[in-house]
Amino acid sequence: MIYLDNAATTYPKPESVYKAHDYALRNFGANPGRGGHSFSRETARAVFQVREKVAKFLTAKCSSQIVFTSSATEAMSTVLLGSLKKGDHVISTSMEHNAVWRPLKYLKENKGVELSFCKHIRGHIDLKDLKEQLKANTKIVVVNHVSNVFGTEQDIKEINKIVKEYSKSKVVVDVAQSVGEKMINATEWGVDALIFAGHKSLFGPVGTGGFYLKSDFEVEPLKIGGTGSSSESASVPLCGPERFESGTLNTPGIWALGAGIDFINEKGIDTIKNHKRKLSGYLRNGLEELKATVYDGGEKSSVISFNIGDMDSTEVAFILDDLYDIIVRAGLHCSPSAHKTFGTAKQGTVRVSPGYYNSQAEIDILLDAVAELKRG
Amino acid sequence: MIYLDNAATTYPKPESVYKAHDYALRNFGANPGRGGHSFSRETARAVFQVREKVAKFLTAKCSSQIVFTSSATEAMSTVLLGSLKKGDHVISTSMEHNAVWRPLKYLKENKGVELSFCKHIRGHIDLKDLKEQLKANTKIVVVNHVSNVFGTEQDIKEINKIVKEYSKSKVVVDVAQSVGEKMINATEWGVDALIFAGHKSLFGPVGTGGFYLKSDFEVEPLKIGGTGSSSESASVPLCGPERFESGTLNTPGIWALGAGIDFINEKGIDTIKNHKRKLSGYLRNGLEELKATVYDGGEKSSVISFNIGDMDSTEVAFILDDLYDIIVRAGLHCSPSAHKTFGTAKQGTVRVSPGYYNSQAEIDILLDAVAELKRG
Repeated sequence: MIYLDNAATTYPKPESVYKAHDYALRNFGANPGRGGHSFSRETARAVFQVREKVAKFLTAKCSSQIVFTSSATEAMSTVLLGSLKKGDHVISTSMEHNAVWRPLKYLKENKGVELSFCKHIRGHIDLKDLKEQLKANTKIVVVNHVSNVFGTEQDIKEINKIVKEYSKSKVVVDVAQSVGEKMINATEWGVDALIFAGHKSLFGPVGTGGFYLKSDFEVEPLKIGGTGSSSESASVPLCGPERFESGTLNTPGIWALGAGIDFINEKGIDTIKNHKRKLSGYLRNGLEELKATVYDGGEKSSVISFNIGDMDSTEVAFILDDLYDIIVRAGLHCSPSAHKTFGTAKQGTVRVSPGYYNSQAEIDILLDAVAELKRG
Repeated sequence: MIYLDNAATTYPKPESVYKAHDYALRNFGANPGRGGHSFSRETARAVFQVREKVAKFLTAKCSSQIVFTSSATEAMSTVLLGSLKKGDHVISTSMEHNAVWRPLKYLKENKGVELSFCKHIRGHIDLKDLKEQLKANTKIVVVNHVSNVFGTEQDIKEINKIVKEYSKSKVVVDVAQSVGEKMINATEWGVDALIFAGHKSLFGPVGTGGFYLKSDFEVEPLKIGGTGSSSESASVPLCGPERFESGTLNTPGIWALGAGIDFINEKGIDTIKNHKRKLSGYLRNGLEELKATVYDGGEKSSVISFNIGDMDSTEVAFILDDLYDIIVRAGLHCSPSAHKTFGTAKQGTVRVSPGYYNSQAEIDILLDAVAELKRG
């Protein structure tokens, strides 16, 4: 099997991630922060270590700004549903994932939240339009850093600067697709929240994710329950990550996520990125030679979305899977509105996302398959 | 180390659970239900298989009534926060875990939900009082099946019968502590929702849990995002477990939970329970001989809560850990109100919860340690 769907989830994971995942389940048996016995404290320490690692990786000032969740989706839902109230205005874009799109539509239809969309120029936010859309009641501007479909990248530092200059709005950034591939600089960017997935370019297991939250950003937790700390109180703690982490944490997942970050630090984030870019650049050239339609925002990206003539994208992916044992993704990739931007809402796109473990020989096999498909 | 905190989380897990956990991360790399390629379908099939296993284990009529979450806490928050609205009345008891207690307090203080507590007789719900508390606006009665602190068991079938006879209320049962140890009979009980933890007596990893939900019980999802299915729609699906499972599922955790259930089915739920009961009965006799105070509801349980004179429970647990390498839990166990019922809110209790992998020899070591502590 040739796996080229790393934008959905990276596969395989580094061997060290598998080992950490197994080690944690075998050795961190206890419930972190519960009961105070040494076994539980060891588990709590393990979680803390990874929290520190993530904080450093995102350049957060303090690890207490890092919250672990079971997915980027849970993280995004927490920040959006936990802060937007009736009468608030939120600005987003048509390039967002359903993890943003669906909660915003829900808030608009059920909670009286006002929703605007910012214009795009070839997948990039029109900064002039963004500035004009900001209002006195704009509470949040939520955008992705890199599109999961087309790989287009936004200038987050500039977006944050404009938003802060012309409004009191918070800036929430979805880095699910970029974290682990591009440098994320929470502090320099100055944004208020970052939403991350653990199982994509961070090489962690599925079931991990989280968010970075500045301490002056008031967000209500999504789930409420036991936190181990302050057991005698009828409320969850008022501050710190525990406020959002009620219930027993997925320690094996978190520990393995730490191993994923170690792997990136060892290899070098640029080495990994360059390898992926080399493969995707090679693929893009090959596809263009074959006269396939490649969609992008005019920049280098490790995600390539394409179509062959007017062939249905899901049919192309099905054939690649069935006849060639090549795993790519087709359809709307949980981002229907992004496809509207690129005019591919009906056909969808075939998305190829090479990973660190793919080789050029595998891309050649894919290109040969596409050539055969074109010949029909 | 002698681990006697299995009511917090079972440890160790069966070897088959470790293997399944590792296998799933290595082999189910893709995102279940996303993209439709064979690798993704295999993963979806794996999740479906465990859903069927859980359904059968709880005697649910259909596996689509089973929702996976990252913890019992998330499951309980979903059901309570997703259904109770201003003006609704909810009845609970003082024996509940913070996963119930805290959301209810939150709903009372912030959402105008009316909250009543049912009287207890030695940790058992006073059924006459329950009947009297039911009102026209009672929307939910939420109780645990077995207390995580004192091991007291409620007669759920009888509770459900009374509630349904005298009101239109739904019955929500927290089986976090009992599932895997006692037979759970969703269909025969007739209750509307069951909240389960995966990492306790089901032998699954931390980071797993879920709920059973009858299809006529209207609950809003807690998190909203991509579900893989119906990607083109701006809303999460209206029915089925996917409605509550936005984001990428913890497939390794879920697959390993399935292995935990297989383990119980192979060994026999009664064999496991009897082993634990034998050890806890032996411990209880030993503690009583040593004139320690044992708290219970007058029934056999595999959880023993005790105190030595007026010694602080956390001090006792600390000494057992530090000097004897025995892991037990002390304090309030995330259930402050349950302690009020038994008059132990200040001192807390030392809770010992033997598991399938403990031996009588280990209980003897604990009893010797308690005897030494008593001598001072």
